[in-house]
Amino acid sequence: RIDADRLWDSIHEMAEIGPGVAGGSNRQTLTDDDAKGRALFRSWCEAAGCEMGLDGIGNMFATRPGTDPDALPVYVGSHLDTQPTGGRYDGVLGVLGGLEVIRTLNDLGIRTKHPITVVNWTNEEGTRFAPAMLASGVFAGVHAQDWAEDRTDAEGNRFGDELDRIGWRGDEPVGGRKMHALLELHIEQGPILEAEGKEIGVVTHGQGLRWIECTVTGKESHTGSTPMPMRRNAGRGLAQITELVHEIAMSNAPNAVGAIGHVDVHPNSRNIIPGRVVFTIDFRSHELDRLNGMVDRLMEEAPKLCEALGVGFAAEIVGQFDPPAFDERLVGIVRQAAERLGYSHMDIVSGAGHDACWINQVAPTAMIMCPCVDGLSHNEAEEIRKEWAQAGTDVLLHAVLEVAEV
Amino acid sequence: RIDADRLWDSIHEMAEIGPGVAGGSNRQTLTDDDAKGRALFRSWCEAAGCEMGLDGIGNMFATRPGTDPDALPVYVGSHLDTQPTGGRYDGVLGVLGGLEVIRTLNDLGIRTKHPITVVNWTNEEGTRFAPAMLASGVFAGVHAQDWAEDRTDAEGNRFGDELDRIGWRGDEPVGGRKMHALLELHIEQGPILEAEGKEIGVVTHGQGLRWIECTVTGKESHTGSTPMPMRRNAGRGLAQITELVHEIAMSNAPNAVGAIGHVDVHPNSRNIIPGRVVFTIDFRSHELDRLNGMVDRLMEEAPKLCEALGVGFAAEIVGQFDPPAFDERLVGIVRQAAERLGYSHMDIVSGAGHDACWINQVAPTAMIMCPCVDGLSHNEAEEIRKEWAQAGTDVLLHAVLEVAEV
Ligand SMILES: NC(=O)NCCC(=O)O
Ligand SMILES: NC(=O)NCCC(=O)O
Repeated sequence: RIDADRLWDSIHEMAEIGPGVAGGSNRQTLTDDDAKGRALFRSWCEAAGCEMGLDGIGNMFATRPGTDPDALPVYVGSHLDTQPTGGRYDGVLGVLGGLEVIRTLNDLGIRTKHPITVVNWTNEEGTRFAPAMLASGVFAGVHAQDWAEDRTDAEGNRFGDELDRIGWRGDEPVGGRKMHALLELHIEQGPILEAEGKEIGVVTHGQGLRWIECTVTGKESHTGSTPMPMRRNAGRGLAQITELVHEIAMSNAPNAVGAIGHVDVHPNSRNIIPGRVVFTIDFRSHELDRLNGMVDRLMEEAPKLCEALGVGFAAEIVGQFDPPAFDERLVGIVRQAAERLGYSHMDIVSGAGHDACWINQVAPTAMIMCPCVDGLSHNEAEEIRKEWAQAGTDVLLHAVLEVAEV
Repeated sequence: RIDADRLWDSIHEMAEIGPGVAGGSNRQTLTDDDAKGRALFRSWCEAAGCEMGLDGIGNMFATRPGTDPDALPVYVGSHLDTQPTGGRYDGVLGVLGGLEVIRTLNDLGIRTKHPITVVNWTNEEGTRFAPAMLASGVFAGVHAQDWAEDRTDAEGNRFGDELDRIGWRGDEPVGGRKMHALLELHIEQGPILEAEGKEIGVVTHGQGLRWIECTVTGKESHTGSTPMPMRRNAGRGLAQITELVHEIAMSNAPNAVGAIGHVDVHPNSRNIIPGRVVFTIDFRSHELDRLNGMVDRLMEEAPKLCEALGVGFAAEIVGQFDPPAFDERLVGIVRQAAERLGYSHMDIVSGAGHDACWINQVAPTAMIMCPCVDGLSHNEAEEIRKEWAQAGTDVLLHAVLEVAEV
């Protein structure tokens, strides 16, 4: 079993880097705080005797050697970046849980045939630079590295420039590593495990995602002196599409979800009718046909709503992945580990996207989930119990021991 | 008659300070560019032989002495601050038109009994710091100076601190000046004069205004893993209230208008359901009862919509003025000046708020309007014809001559 106190202390020490305003963290990707968090993680890995690797898009790899020089490593890990108002566990549990596995093996003097590598993927969250899971996507060959580096944040900063600025670009080619397997431990970010009273979620599938960035174009004009019939109010396009997105999601529930999280109103002045509103729709479903059908309906109805309002509509997909199905053998190993350790468990579908969803395309992959209080995530109040972190990391340890071969 | 070329040149020289991105200006109040614009205006006034005054809230006064030491000054002027995506004429025409009156009197060697003072009011636009017409409101005793100085911008900067930072706080007590009269020249910012083919609008009344800052509070949570029934999406509150505002305005049109220009979504991340949305409703009417009735309806229906969505609703009035009626004698003088000069004219109601609306409470006040192309304002594409600027400023000159007594 892992040392839950040590894991817990490391998680909360990391959370103090880029502290939030309400108990969580704001350690967005490629910020100065991201750099500080990376440095802390590296120091811990080096203290645990790992060899550090860094690839050209900032993905960090900390490797504990195996006994067989020809055996490919077993990867564990997740991401250390957070939402602007993020919790302490989203991503962090998976990375530091991976480190805790290595620390425990060191304590017990256990050697494995395969090396074990803890990975910290760059920009999982996708808030500062869309899409989410960007660097694992490049690693898996889904995105071109140049394209990824050209992503810009709201201030127009390039991803590649920010990576150089914080000094965490490495020499390793991205995606050059071959993997024996990858196991990602993550909090559920939803309410199911807690509601069902289960300590472990064995993730069999994930939801697919479509991020549709919409631009509604009206005409900036004076809120006081522009007669009502002359107005071309882009804000009304946002309003009607917000409700359309909700309606599309509800008519596909419980097998799909949808919402708008990001909105920029231009020029955002109290006495100017919005001339342009840019916003991103987030649609998800674990059924591919359903997901595509939702997008189709949006693309059919939104332009009509906008036309009736006298405003323009344009849309672009800025993030997408199809519903992943994880490796059956690995999923079975996770299930058996939970069973063997006596933890209550159930099979679940991941509501969120994860780096494992991309890596699943290039290596056998599985995920382990533990509950979070009230299913709350992407909120500074995100909370888990220490026993849940313990259970998840114990299962990770035992799954790793099985896959990496003692 | 005034020198239209000189006026035009000054307007366009000023527009280069804080240039916009599409031909207009971005010279928001209390920015470094505001300071530069003020310095340019002062240099022009000093060159025209004026004595400069500056009060404790940054209002600038440039005075051409009169012949009677006991006579109160006649004030002309408007504001030099702009919207973030503002035009070249909104406010600027009134200030530089006032300066052009003085330059013309200097050229012609005409002395007036009453001094003539050109004023540049601080923060007319109200975009960076709500409410609009802030410093003229303090001057008129409508707002306490301390309260005004405590207004903050989106970054949390205090008005008072920014005034000190740009170095344009003066020693004069605010509102200490007595006025014989005030005349404000301004572009219409609406389509009526152009549509009616009139060169001059004789402003008899203005619309009243209510700015209602609403806060809708939901719960930040993950867009992917939060089941639809568990969502408390503050963005849907914005959506439904946007449509409610439109509906309320339409059912009062053409005697009222309403829209939402300013929206802040929190935390504004593509994969977080909005936990809080703050936005400002702008309602206007020239009928006081109607205006109050619109606010009442909003305050009755918006909380119900939000309750049904499971989100909280709070509202605060952050700007308000009742429909002003200008001084009948002065309005008559403006009308006669237009008539005498042979300019086509009509009586109109101002759709926008102006500093003159506040000063109207403490001194006899009138306004002169000239058309703008397509009624467009609060847009970088705002445009007027040089002949319109000439006509408006000619009427201002002749009204000033009448009021200030040659
Ligand atoms: N786990 C997680 O929150 N990832 C961010 C990508 C997503 O929005 O699902
Ligand atoms: N004239 C003008 O645009 N003033 C700003 C205040 C308002 O919104 O009416």
